[in-house]
Amino acid sequence: MTSGKTSKIAIKITGFGGQGIILAGQIIGEAAAIHDRKNSTFTQSYGPEARGGAACAEVIILDSRVGYPFVDAPDILVAMSQTAFDKYISSLKKGGTLIYETDMVKVHNLPENVRVSSISATALAEKLGNKIVANVVLLGFLTAVTGVITRDSALKVLETSVPARFVDLNRKAFEQGYNYPKSS
Amino acid sequence: MTSGKTSKIAIKITGFGGQGIILAGQIIGEAAAIHDRKNSTFTQSYGPEARGGAACAEVIILDSRVGYPFVDAPDILVAMSQTAFDKYISSLKKGGTLIYETDMVKVHNLPENVRVSSISATALAEKLGNKIVANVVLLGFLTAVTGVITRDSALKVLETSVPARFVDLNRKAFEQGYNYPKSS
Repeated sequence: MTSGKTSKIAIKITGFGGQGIILAGQIIGEAAAIHDRKNSTFTQSYGPEARGGAACAEVIILDSRVGYPFVDAPDILVAMSQTAFDKYISSLKKGGTLIYETDMVKVHNLPENVRVSSISATALAEKLGNKIVANVVLLGFLTAVTGVITRDSALKVLETSVPARFVDLNRKAFEQGYNYPKSS
Repeated sequence: MTSGKTSKIAIKITGFGGQGIILAGQIIGEAAAIHDRKNSTFTQSYGPEARGGAACAEVIILDSRVGYPFVDAPDILVAMSQTAFDKYISSLKKGGTLIYETDMVKVHNLPENVRVSSISATALAEKLGNKIVANVVLLGFLTAVTGVITRDSALKVLETSVPARFVDLNRKAFEQGYNYPKSS
């Protein structure tokens, strides 16, 4: 923008599915942050529109002196690294749920009343043959522990989100996480 | 979540780069909306952390009776379809910038004081050999018109965001948009 005073710029990109709207938004967000040294968020919205084939992406670019634009204290925090745990654990809501990678995180300073579950997602993924699916092991575990999405929905999206030759591996990874004991 | 009263659930997924955190967040957002019939947003945050190799994704899932969680009136609205234009034009800030696809959108009901630029992104992309890069033509145009990101940054991200064999096509598409006359 030409205004030198604007410290926050919101950009909405809209159209129909297949026009590459999401990619355009992601590129703007990454370019602003990684190369132009600003903070940015990229948000993809899904709703009735998404089902009708419409697409909407939103990018917010902030001057680097402005704080990080996290909007919500999470009800569910997933920590796959110690650094992430240390940084975000204090933001977890009372009564919320913490899910962490058993072998990557040492838990401390838990807020009150937090429900805790952990899984050795990376080790389980390695046993399946590729630690790259640790995230999907964790996704299956999160689905079982929290019920925020259904198993069927997660599997449907997963199957269209990974290359065809990796669908079997990913499905197995999901099931490993889904069937893992829930209490830590 | 087990609470039946919660109409909004915020999930934060955190760790380091390469753990597939972004993909996990996207799958949750899509599964919730497209298959579980809820509204959801998926937000990817970039900041100093992103440059340090950390990753953070946030998903918000809303019961379908809750309104759509758009946070910001945009400073810049990009409309690549008539439906999108009709829906979002009233939300554009006074003094904001509208960018639209010349051949897809008929402009009406403009808010006050709006700066307007348009480009035949799809036709230009077709001339380059593939209308799939219409979004990148538009991205180049947006970069030139608004200056929200720099040309160099956009090109750097673009080059790592598309398969190697399409880099040339995408770079050409970006330049076509970047060099297009700015006034409508």
